[in-house]
Amino acid sequence: MIIVMHREATDRDVAAIVARIEEQGLGVNVSRGTERTVIGAIGDERKLDQVMFETMAGVEQALHILKPYKIVAREWHPEDTVINIRGIPLGGPQVQVIAGPCSVETPEQMAASASAVKAAGVRLMRGGAFKPRTSPYTFQGTGVEGLEMFRQAADAENLPIVTELMDVRQLPMFMDYGVDVIQIGTRNMQNFDLLKEVGRINVPVILKRGMSATISEWLMAAEYIAAGGNHNIIFCERGIRTFETAYRNVLDVTAIPVLKKETHLPVIVDPSHAGGKAWMVPALSRAAVAAGADGLLVEMHPSPCDAWCDADQALNPQELQTLMGELRGIAGILGRSIA
Amino acid sequence: MIIVMHREATDRDVAAIVARIEEQGLGVNVSRGTERTVIGAIGDERKLDQVMFETMAGVEQALHILKPYKIVAREWHPEDTVINIRGIPLGGPQVQVIAGPCSVETPEQMAASASAVKAAGVRLMRGGAFKPRTSPYTFQGTGVEGLEMFRQAADAENLPIVTELMDVRQLPMFMDYGVDVIQIGTRNMQNFDLLKEVGRINVPVILKRGMSATISEWLMAAEYIAAGGNHNIIFCERGIRTFETAYRNVLDVTAIPVLKKETHLPVIVDPSHAGGKAWMVPALSRAAVAAGADGLLVEMHPSPCDAWCDADQALNPQELQTLMGELRGIAGILGRSIA
Amino acid sequence: MIIVMHREATDRDVAAIVARIEEQGLGVNVSRGTERTVIGAIGDERKLDQVMFETMAGVEQALHILKPYKIVAREWHPEDTVINIRGIPLGGPQVQVIAGPCSVETPEQMAASASAVKAAGVRLMRGGAFKPRTSPYTFQGTGVEGLEMFRQAADAENLPIVTELMDVRQLPMFMDYGVDVIQIGTRNMQNFDLLKEVGRINVPVILKRGMSATISEWLMAAEYIAAGGNHNIIFCERGIRTFETAYRNVLDVTAIPVLKKETHLPVIVDPSHAGGKAWMVPALSRAAVAAGADGLLVEMHPSPCDAWCDADQALNPQELQTLMGELRGIAGILGRSIA
Amino acid sequence: MIIVMHREATDRDVAAIVARIEEQGLGVNVSRGTERTVIGAIGDERKLDQVMFETMAGVEQALHILKPYKIVAREWHPEDTVINIRGIPLGGPQVQVIAGPCSVETPEQMAASASAVKAAGVRLMRGGAFKPRTSPYTFQGTGVEGLEMFRQAADAENLPIVTELMDVRQLPMFMDYGVDVIQIGTRNMQNFDLLKEVGRINVPVILKRGMSATISEWLMAAEYIAAGGNHNIIFCERGIRTFETAYRNVLDVTAIPVLKKETHLPVIVDPSHAGGKAWMVPALSRAAVAAGADGLLVEMHPSPCDAWCDADQALNPQELQTLMGELRGIAGILGRSIA
Repeated sequence: MIIVMHREATDRDVAAIVARIEEQGLGVNVSRGTERTVIGAIGDERKLDQVMFETMAGVEQALHILKPYKIVAREWHPEDTVINIRGIPLGGPQVQVIAGPCSVETPEQMAASASAVKAAGVRLMRGGAFKPRTSPYTFQGTGVEGLEMFRQAADAENLPIVTELMDVRQLPMFMDYGVDVIQIGTRNMQNFDLLKEVGRINVPVILKRGMSATISEWLMAAEYIAAGGNHNIIFCERGIRTFETAYRNVLDVTAIPVLKKETHLPVIVDPSHAGGKAWMVPALSRAAVAAGADGLLVEMHPSPCDAWCDADQALNPQELQTLMGELRGIAGILGRSIA
Repeated sequence: MIIVMHREATDRDVAAIVARIEEQGLGVNVSRGTERTVIGAIGDERKLDQVMFETMAGVEQALHILKPYKIVAREWHPEDTVINIRGIPLGGPQVQVIAGPCSVETPEQMAASASAVKAAGVRLMRGGAFKPRTSPYTFQGTGVEGLEMFRQAADAENLPIVTELMDVRQLPMFMDYGVDVIQIGTRNMQNFDLLKEVGRINVPVILKRGMSATISEWLMAAEYIAAGGNHNIIFCERGIRTFETAYRNVLDVTAIPVLKKETHLPVIVDPSHAGGKAWMVPALSRAAVAAGADGLLVEMHPSPCDAWCDADQALNPQELQTLMGELRGIAGILGRSIA
Repeated sequence: MIIVMHREATDRDVAAIVARIEEQGLGVNVSRGTERTVIGAIGDERKLDQVMFETMAGVEQALHILKPYKIVAREWHPEDTVINIRGIPLGGPQVQVIAGPCSVETPEQMAASASAVKAAGVRLMRGGAFKPRTSPYTFQGTGVEGLEMFRQAADAENLPIVTELMDVRQLPMFMDYGVDVIQIGTRNMQNFDLLKEVGRINVPVILKRGMSATISEWLMAAEYIAAGGNHNIIFCERGIRTFETAYRNVLDVTAIPVLKKETHLPVIVDPSHAGGKAWMVPALSRAAVAAGADGLLVEMHPSPCDAWCDADQALNPQELQTLMGELRGIAGILGRSIA
Repeated sequence: MIIVMHREATDRDVAAIVARIEEQGLGVNVSRGTERTVIGAIGDERKLDQVMFETMAGVEQALHILKPYKIVAREWHPEDTVINIRGIPLGGPQVQVIAGPCSVETPEQMAASASAVKAAGVRLMRGGAFKPRTSPYTFQGTGVEGLEMFRQAADAENLPIVTELMDVRQLPMFMDYGVDVIQIGTRNMQNFDLLKEVGRINVPVILKRGMSATISEWLMAAEYIAAGGNHNIIFCERGIRTFETAYRNVLDVTAIPVLKKETHLPVIVDPSHAGGKAWMVPALSRAAVAAGADGLLVEMHPSPCDAWCDADQALNPQELQTLMGELRGIAGILGRSIA
């Protein structure tokens, strides 16, 4: 940690800072400049609280120079982590698409979805049984019955399932149904109790980025899961909130190369929630793969106009198939493949 | 709802929309303009899904003209709601300050805090036993023991207590300790399962605004609580996330008059988390009361430099007392009082 | 325009609105719903001022249903506009890259840049002679001498030049040097006097997006240029300002398909200013082309470490060449080519 | 400047950095920690370019520890600057209100405005002759005739005038009409050529904050003016752009105490553009004065419904008078006065 003193800081102020750092068992370097004195703490600064120093007399600012995350950091784990989802690798040279409807509606809809997913060459299926909805008066998901329908439809096509967990109390049920990948949604990215619980199991977790979460906060949220022992974490960029009102969110493609540099864990993109309109999905999907994403989470519905939620953002089966073709081409240029 | 058709929409497209609206039992008004045909649905549009119409042929956009919230809306409840917290009114002419430390540390710290709160003329006390922390490696709160310490210290001064609930599983414990006001934190504003649970009890709830929640989303989050039967809801503005990095958050004072217009429920402000520095708190507190806030949630610590968390944003007892004096003056100009 | 009345609006309020619309020569449709009366104006609503209606008694809100831009709108000009820059097409099937240094430094640097640009297969060259710098104490550009150096170096390789205009008084000088494409920078997107001046000439203009400009404001800024008679306008997305601090700006790829839908004019992307670091440029460039951009504006320097400004965001000649290869592949998948 | 090296940086990398700093005539302090080596430059770091160091081998990040602004900084000028506007002090204990219409329309409207301004006890008058409008198709201001009308109306009441300059070419005309305070609008905060021009004269300048300008960029924009010799600069906060759509901008009250700490120059607030609705203006004005603003810039129109622009944000004369009364009370509590 670097502590920059005010121009008028006294020798006594400096001595107090030095003493405080040494108390914590760290070494100290004091550099007296012409305009400012700068104090450096030598050793594991993660023990030091920046805010505590900023309350001390004569301190202008205290700056961490190390990243606060450790298990998820590429610095400590240089090789890419490949997550194994019932034999399907996520995070390696193969780009994985996960597709399916926004919400589980009926057995027929799920069967049609599963077969369309399979037909498009997609190897993992998504679907929501418990839905986080902005209004208490709109459809809240089919719940446990939805989970049952989803499991059956996916099993018929031998597709692992990805679904969202909103409440710690539902985790045992998710385990009973053998959910293959648990999704933590945008609104729960900093629901720390939920993160701790999924940290205690070993099912892969997709951690969606909070609506206005910084890269650093997002990595720290993953660190919560990892600190519990579950290192099977997949980051999912889904668009951030900005001033722009012409589309729902702004897909942050820059996050892809930046995360790939900071962490060894896989990074996927949800182009459907990012743009909010089906017609934007192909362009955003291509951009994500071109920027180096390890996979996509795409909404597809056998009959989008009849979908019970987010009807306007789902691709139909034909559109998914066309998109897969384009993505195969782009992945190839980057030396990757799509199953 | 207003549905604006594309310039090239056909008569058949228009007929399909009309049929769909009538199916839902609403009336229809069709206005054929020179550049666009506009269709209006007559009746309770809350039954209609805007997104569903936007997937239909020929539709350019669908617009709700009614607000999606009802119980919390002033439109349906014109008088101010005054919430009774063990005899202390919040939301009426009296401006209420809630003060106390960021986190519960020791019995001595809590006793000193409670007596400082009382001495400043403050009638409600805050303190955190369960802490939402960005890093899994920092202090996570004293938990149930903290709740016990808090209850005892506050009881000694006869102060109702306000503390944060992060996990649905802790609600019974909060009831056992007789928590007087439950705080739902920023990161949980859209933790819908938690909102539903606090909607089932009748303890007053402070609902903090999400870091980048719109006024409309915030009102809808309150509607979740209200829909369960608990109408004792207090909105708490605590700064929003923007591009500015010179301070932690941007206190959104405009939200105060806007919320007071939209809802009958009380609106308070947390100036401590908004700015993130103790020296900013007096200016922000005065601004909040001057803009019409019904109360404040302020961090105070008997010895800020020794605080276990957020040390740089707590006032000391003397600063709180000085601030109370200024606030009494401002409240008086607006025809209000501070106990 | 749609005017939504308050629930308690009187017949007299409605009559006043109707009269005001009719005064302007438009027709009126009044729809009396169960909760609200909605008034529609029939005819060219661009004559009506939404704000004016919102001051009238009984009005809740007034909404435009038509887009405020006309010349730049695809609605009125469905075919793509292809801009001819000394024989080089921008906006058609060929994706055009524009490359060169951030700032013009010396004749040697410019000669080396021009030959590297040419060698990479790039057909247009960029370089800044007048620089908008955040601080008055940093390098402000080489000015007219820079323009001279740029012209000579580019002419030696027969490359059209692209450079930024910051001040209306410099326009005659730009014309004298035969600047082939004038760039209007981010900070000047709403410098309306400058827009009007470049609207009076017929040199192509690259209009960069303002740091926090909405799509609609950006289209309106282009409409300022177009209204003067110059329809040779190229939109350039260069990253927007958000809460994220891990990189300089957030490249808004969603803007690409959205603009292509709204306007017939070409859309290019500046990946260098978006990310702010050279190592991010290839990923962002690929994403832009994959999302459908018509071109790129890329910083390249013969020796990035010695650059006088923005040293850390320029590619070196070899990196540019490698990138061009990847982009050719992606363009090919979309049925496009790169010269 | 502090330069943090990568964990794997070599001795040679460190030596190169040290040499580069010494070349610039600064001293060096090298601190070898357990995880990182940190290099400090000792002396006037304003000579060093952070970005240049970030391109050198082995560098993780380079951090400035001094603020980039100097003339405007309170660090170098601890006392408040009081600006003298034809005998009226701005920046001292007296809080100054500047009021008047959004735009100059007719001699009658200006005469009525001036007398209402005077009657309310306001000592400075505002009015726009040249208007920055988002659309080229809307009213662009009455121009030089407007300036003439404004001058005459204000002179009749002996009020100094404040008006916006958009184009460097209009500056001589502004001087001819003896404009007392020149306003630089939001969209021109980083129009550096315009800033340089107003830096060459000695008329006071109101510098409005850019829509998404950071405090630091805003101070640097003022430094541009100050560097030219004109130190009569007044900062004007007018709301920033965020994700919120319920109001036009978010008034950033936190900027008031923060600026007052960073600079010795006066800080005023424009509550009219911030909220965008007249009914929000009193609450925002009170908040601004309570937070320590040195003045306000308020829109007032003798007949708001008939205003030619921004009709819905102007107070009427009676509302202005009532507001002045409230502000006097709040200023008094802070030990200040309003003329």
